Amino acid sequence: MKIDGVPFRSVWVDEDDGWSIRIFDQTRLPWSLDILRLSDRDTVAHAIRSMQVRGAPLIGAVAAYGLALSLRADSSTDAMERDAALLKETRPTAVNLAWAIDRMLVRLRNTPAADRARVAYEEAGLICDEDVEQNERIGRHGLALIREIAERKQREGGSGRVNLLTHCNAGWIATVDWGTALAPIYMAHDAGLDVHVWVDETRPRNQGAALTAWELGRHGVGHTLLSDNAGGHLMQHGEVDMVIVGTDRVTREGDVANKIGTYLKALAARDNGVPFWVALPSTTIDWDVRDGVKEIPIENRSGEEVTFLTGRAEDGALHRVRIAPDDTDAANPAFDVTPARLVTGLITERGVCDASEDGLLSLFPERR
Amino acid sequence: MKIDGVPFRSVWVDEDDGWSIRIFDQTRLPWSLDILRLSDRDTVAHAIRSMQVRGAPLIGAVAAYGLALSLRADSSTDAMERDAALLKETRPTAVNLAWAIDRMLVRLRNTPAADRARVAYEEAGLICDEDVEQNERIGRHGLALIREIAERKQREGGSGRVNLLTHCNAGWIATVDWGTALAPIYMAHDAGLDVHVWVDETRPRNQGAALTAWELGRHGVGHTLLSDNAGGHLMQHGEVDMVIVGTDRVTREGDVANKIGTYLKALAARDNGVPFWVALPSTTIDWDVRDGVKEIPIENRSGEEVTFLTGRAEDGALHRVRIAPDDTDAANPAFDVTPARLVTGLITERGVCDASEDGLLSLFPERR
Repeated sequence: MKIDGVPFRSVWVDEDDGWSIRIFDQTRLPWSLDILRLSDRDTVAHAIRSMQVRGAPLIGAVAAYGLALSLRADSSTDAMERDAALLKETRPTAVNLAWAIDRMLVRLRNTPAADRARVAYEEAGLICDEDVEQNERIGRHGLALIREIAERKQREGGSGRVNLLTHCNAGWIATVDWGTALAPIYMAHDAGLDVHVWVDETRPRNQGAALTAWELGRHGVGHTLLSDNAGGHLMQHGEVDMVIVGTDRVTREGDVANKIGTYLKALAARDNGVPFWVALPSTTIDWDVRDGVKEIPIENRSGEEVTFLTGRAEDGALHRVRIAPDDTDAANPAFDVTPARLVTGLITERGVCDASEDGLLSLFPERR
Repeated sequence: MKIDGVPFRSVWVDEDDGWSIRIFDQTRLPWSLDILRLSDRDTVAHAIRSMQVRGAPLIGAVAAYGLALSLRADSSTDAMERDAALLKETRPTAVNLAWAIDRMLVRLRNTPAADRARVAYEEAGLICDEDVEQNERIGRHGLALIREIAERKQREGGSGRVNLLTHCNAGWIATVDWGTALAPIYMAHDAGLDVHVWVDETRPRNQGAALTAWELGRHGVGHTLLSDNAGGHLMQHGEVDMVIVGTDRVTREGDVANKIGTYLKALAARDNGVPFWVALPSTTIDWDVRDGVKEIPIENRSGEEVTFLTGRAEDGALHRVRIAPDDTDAANPAFDVTPARLVTGLITERGVCDASEDGLLSLFPERR
């Protein structure tokens, strides 16, 4: 997608040296667009842990390049297995990370050590290209759902404006390009539909305010920021036509792990008859897990993400400020699980389906 | 209640001059305990609008003193009626404000102008004393509910610790003393029960982090701050025994208006079988309104409350920082309505009841 007219992906191989990896430092958005250079396993692991890169698909892609960087330094089987395990453990909830590393290993274990680095770069590049293609397909399938709502509202005599609500950031910078939840919205906007996005700020890390609002603004999509508390009220008053979110892991039975607070929006959507859709590439499906609430590990992050916050003061300087009493600690579970029963449907690169094992198997029969 | 050992109410008549009104500037908490002097109608109206005082019961009490200050300057009927109307319009959602002003007018309209100021101070003082007494009763009724949970958990072989979740601030500084939702918690703590409070930060104004955590900390009650997104996840995992919140207006049929986001927690409580209680003095009941979602006016506040935030930097200075892109605007509905069907029960000064017309009338038969 474009930033003020210039096309970007969110991870790429440096064009000058041909091997180091370039990413945006997403912890600096929306304040500045800093491009970082990752040159080894450790800078990649740090980028994932510190959330300089985040978003399930992007984490997978960057981790794949991390293994390529590792093999460039030491292509032995021992080093490869050790660094693959280390990269897989950088974050626990998103399944794309393990998927990407496992896919790399399948190919690399059958590759002579001398060829491994070259093959790893090739495979990581494929992972990126496939992510972009899958997201474009997700966008087209989701666009049809948005178009249906626009047409219905026009038939009913309204303006045809479609109000969507999203939580966290599942836009192009959460993937290699296009995004998952935002791909249909970009396509609807580009197709001339009147879309407006309610953006949950997504405490504690404010990915909605810092990333989603930034992305949508750079592309010219109309949006309004909300506190995470406001979505239920808007749904009660008919101000939301559709909720669409991304996900970090979907179970075989359709439970959806996503950024903390997603479950609350799904409950409100159900209570008000608002469709609640989840957009994902099939790499986000964990076919080995059934019960999301019981089985998906939820990352607990530092309470300081809740008690401190960074913003820009009037003098233009960034300040990290404490927003709670000094003797108050915080808990910070980073994800929650929305049970499949609350999900209207899943939007994948192969089309839409029910959030259920039958639904998923109808699109992915090879997993029977 | 006490602040580090010193007993306070949250509004009082200045002891030196005998007529000006003293409050804490709640926009300065938790950073500093600034006591303000209100000397006329305009400083009172400003204190309410700018949320230097907030919390439905406290707003009513302070507005009553505002009318007394007005009458001290001009005790004519015209001035009284004009200033009563002006004070009633300072904030739209809480019903205690209108209740307090109407109660003052009932008494003052039958009082000769020369006596009005004296009578107004007397009546405002009664409103304050009655608020404290009602909240103490609410505390005792709520304590019984907490004790039941503690005893059940002990019978089941657990520690007896009771984990409560609250949203916004319905503590002693939201009332004249004791609080509504927090009164039972203070009593349980003082009675030696092992209580722990999950405190929703309550975006956008962070009353949970700034006020509730501060209050509980000053009294020594164990608590943990949470992003507003986290409560559902905790309930899914059995970490919440009871939700207890205050309210700005309860309808005749038991719908509950409270700080934005309360509805989402009620949905999660219902989905997980967690009791959801609402604590209120009967002055918060609007007997003339039935359908809360349709009939209660919801205040829309400035979007800057969402896009800007104040906190303390490492150098100790307070900074107001922007946390969203410059070209992103925010919507800011300040309250939502939780339908009665999601409310386990109401805790009033006369005891507990179902959130329904029958339930309320069983405690307040004079309203039949």
